[in-house]
Amino acid sequence: MTLTADQQRAAAKDAYASYLAECPSRQVLDIIGAKWATLVLLPLAEGPKRHSQLRARIAGASQKMLTETLRLLERDGLVAREVKQVFPAHVEYSLTPLGESLMPILWHMKDWAEVNMAEVEAHRRAAAD
Amino acid sequence: MTLTADQQRAAAKDAYASYLAECPSRQVLDIIGAKWATLVLLPLAEGPKRHSQLRARIAGASQKMLTETLRLLERDGLVAREVKQVFPAHVEYSLTPLGESLMPILWHMKDWAEVNMAEVEAHRRAAAD
Repeated sequence: MTLTADQQRAAAKDAYASYLAECPSRQVLDIIGAKWATLVLLPLAEGPKRHSQLRARIAGASQKMLTETLRLLERDGLVAREVKQVFPAHVEYSLTPLGESLMPILWHMKDWAEVNMAEVEAHRRAAAD
Repeated sequence: MTLTADQQRAAAKDAYASYLAECPSRQVLDIIGAKWATLVLLPLAEGPKRHSQLRARIAGASQKMLTETLRLLERDGLVAREVKQVFPAHVEYSLTPLGESLMPILWHMKDWAEVNMAEVEAHRRAAAD
């Protein structure tokens, strides 16, 4: 049986979708690989923060982008949003225990990068020559 | 100073580019987060494989997609390509020591997912209600 190019593309797309749905490491990559996700998780690992405090830490993040990222992390149960009933009332974001349990993976990646990225870069330069 | 919407977008793009360049965990995410990358790394962690053996393990991967992924991993020094001078001569792909050093991060993500993805899914369902 020969598939047309369109059929091949559709089959590849289906296969990739089922891989995404089933592969455990891919599921984690989808969470922490989302644009800005690590940038939000890393400051929250230091302690609860207001929206304005997070923005100040993340150069160039628009209000909209930050709000969207926080909603996604909240939806996944990694970040909790709490209205602080003090004066002035304000909203604070913090890592949930589930979010905290994800952090060692980020530290693990950070450690690997610090040890090994120079070697990766050297390979990239050699390949570009 | 008030930025126009275009200027804001440009600033956000610049900031994201410099974050990508500097953040160690992001650099690792860019390597293992590439489409199909984990699918290629996981079978190679079991031992060297030919192109056809890899294809057989990755349902739906086109020849082109697999070739591109292998080239990217080769460029980064994670995968080695070796021409085996036996009869019939063939090409074999294997993890380099650098590639092997990356695998514990993938196992770590896999373990986290197996323990925690049910809770993430439960949060997603609750958020969708």
